[in-house]
Amino acid sequence: MDAHEHLKQAAHAAREASHILGRSLRPARDAALRAMADALRTSMREILDANAKDTGAFQGTKAFLDRLTLNEARVEAMAVGLEDVAALPDPLDRVLAEWTRPNGLRFQRIATPIGVIGMIYESRPNVGADASGLCLKSGNAVILRGGSDSVHSAAAINVALQRGLAAAGLPPACVQNAPTADRSYVAAMLAGAGLLDLIIPRGGKSLVERVQQEARVPVLAHAEGLCHTFVHAAADPDMARKIVANAKMRRTGICGATETLLVDRPIAASILPLLIADLRVLGCDFRADAASRAIVPELAVATEADFNTEWLDAVLSVAVVDGVEGALSHIARHGSEHTDAIVTQDEGAARQFLRGVDSAVALWNASTQFCDGGEFGFGAEIGIATGRIHARGPVGLEQLTTYRTLVFGTGQVRP
Amino acid sequence: MDAHEHLKQAAHAAREASHILGRSLRPARDAALRAMADALRTSMREILDANAKDTGAFQGTKAFLDRLTLNEARVEAMAVGLEDVAALPDPLDRVLAEWTRPNGLRFQRIATPIGVIGMIYESRPNVGADASGLCLKSGNAVILRGGSDSVHSAAAINVALQRGLAAAGLPPACVQNAPTADRSYVAAMLAGAGLLDLIIPRGGKSLVERVQQEARVPVLAHAEGLCHTFVHAAADPDMARKIVANAKMRRTGICGATETLLVDRPIAASILPLLIADLRVLGCDFRADAASRAIVPELAVATEADFNTEWLDAVLSVAVVDGVEGALSHIARHGSEHTDAIVTQDEGAARQFLRGVDSAVALWNASTQFCDGGEFGFGAEIGIATGRIHARGPVGLEQLTTYRTLVFGTGQVRP
Repeated sequence: MDAHEHLKQAAHAAREASHILGRSLRPARDAALRAMADALRTSMREILDANAKDTGAFQGTKAFLDRLTLNEARVEAMAVGLEDVAALPDPLDRVLAEWTRPNGLRFQRIATPIGVIGMIYESRPNVGADASGLCLKSGNAVILRGGSDSVHSAAAINVALQRGLAAAGLPPACVQNAPTADRSYVAAMLAGAGLLDLIIPRGGKSLVERVQQEARVPVLAHAEGLCHTFVHAAADPDMARKIVANAKMRRTGICGATETLLVDRPIAASILPLLIADLRVLGCDFRADAASRAIVPELAVATEADFNTEWLDAVLSVAVVDGVEGALSHIARHGSEHTDAIVTQDEGAARQFLRGVDSAVALWNASTQFCDGGEFGFGAEIGIATGRIHARGPVGLEQLTTYRTLVFGTGQVRP
Repeated sequence: MDAHEHLKQAAHAAREASHILGRSLRPARDAALRAMADALRTSMREILDANAKDTGAFQGTKAFLDRLTLNEARVEAMAVGLEDVAALPDPLDRVLAEWTRPNGLRFQRIATPIGVIGMIYESRPNVGADASGLCLKSGNAVILRGGSDSVHSAAAINVALQRGLAAAGLPPACVQNAPTADRSYVAAMLAGAGLLDLIIPRGGKSLVERVQQEARVPVLAHAEGLCHTFVHAAADPDMARKIVANAKMRRTGICGATETLLVDRPIAASILPLLIADLRVLGCDFRADAASRAIVPELAVATEADFNTEWLDAVLSVAVVDGVEGALSHIARHGSEHTDAIVTQDEGAARQFLRGVDSAVALWNASTQFCDGGEFGFGAEIGIATGRIHARGPVGLEQLTTYRTLVFGTGQVRP
């Protein structure tokens, strides 16, 4: 069967399952999540065996091999993750708004599932289990297409999850796995208007950009997080040092890591050497503009391209800018509308920055690394979105719902 | 200049304008709306002359000619429409949610503009002015591509609106008009990922379906409104007669008009003849299933295709179904997830229906013709959406916004 035909059949089964899910109540979905967790545990042997096939065939770097590798603790963590999701509040049936019109009609906007979600992801096998849990909790059916490196692991995890669903009396088709990691299956998903309601890609920039450019289905994703931290003239120097060091170096590989430091001209000479020294101790390298190099001459020269680079590494672009407007115009030119922060004790400057920066997440006196569903209090996230509609920033359970409007009448007709 | 190159330039100008709009405050946008209204009035002569060129060249039906024709009253109505939008509440800067985390970080989710919207519409020239007003009020720049029949009217209206914007000190590029009604411009818009943030098509089913299938940009639209009214066994017969007559015949050409009547089997023999008689007096024709024809034999036979037909005319498909589940399964098979209603005095049945029907709008004891932004209390609408994400049902000012998250810290770093 070719990829398109398989997707069509999978999507039809998912649609049927989503109708049952959409009408289910919280206890049924939570029980299924717990049954899925149990099934992961009882399928431990099969999952680890499948994973051994993947790791045995793997030819990439040691870091990637580590991400691909499962062990008992990691499978147990997936199971606990599903139980944690079961314990989160129900994202469905929330009344989002309620109003009454002069003619007596009462309106209720309620949260409902989106329907059928396509999830495209790379290497880490746990993403499939996590995404399955979040979609199920929010009443959505999901079709997963993992990377070719983890094809056996993904299949074994899916078999276990479907066993859990069946045990709990929900259709196994709620959570389906692509039969192949072939690129043709991605192509079928991207063309799947009418079959899929939403695609969530998680992976490297090239994968996400391909999805964003080619999909004829709505997409929630971020291709990159080119995040800035702006140290304003009125910043508390100690706070700025603490925040910049954390924003850049806590973890350099996450999308909320700061990639560019912007320093306000009036304080550049005094604070930049301190910030650089802190970061250098932590192992950071620099690409700096002329004004920064006039203050700290040993910094490497930044090209224009460096300011457009998401390093995802211990490298920081550095520029001196003129006030909030200077920072905003740098960010508008180079940013990715992901996450940007200002450090200042001046509320007026902070408000001006928060209002002017058009990013999914804007912070005042906090590290950009807080851009994360867990840190937002969402309990879990399926990804981070930098598109303009439906959801911006961390995508948690709430963002996996949509709404519809119920209208309660007493016989009203329209004049 | 070819269509793609023009769109690129227009979209860049729109993007610049949208950044200014995004940072503007309500008084500036409302003043611009009033200036745009004034400019329509002072450009009355130019607009009517341009419209005369369109109507002079028009070769279609009388009904379409009427929709295309402008006169002083209609232009004045457009101006008043803009003033009405100015008076509506500000959809921007609303705090949609607010919470604090144990580490003291305070989160605020606020409503912001989407960015640059592409609007594709057919014949009625007023749609361009209405859409311009709603986009401006919600802080979005818009690029309009009207139908070929109204090309001169659309251009003259746009010139006036841009004059109003300039007089109010906002960039004329907030509201731009395609230089051509050529289909190549639509193609350029559909391919405009990264240039446009959202496309709203309004027009016939074939236009909207083309947009939905081909767009690589998010779309808010409805291709059709195949709406059902289900008269349940516990319906108040008088209420059912009033609602069904209104839902079908008040206006047959709008997307919220009922296209299919579903009658519960236990009351079919008693109520169907009354419903049919009422509708027949109003000039309605019927396509009925065998069970309905067993009760009212003179009804024309319905084919399966008839139940998939949005008549937009004085024709009604009729079927007898078995209870709420029968109605739900008919609607799932034939509906368009637009608007569906139940008439019943039984709250349990109503709840079962409202929960089970997966439409953007679901009504209990009210006419489906209430699916309208004005009737929802939105003040105005730019269209109705039956997609699954961002907005479902009438799209008003609120649905033309998105959100971002502001995070207020006191120096927090992530552990």
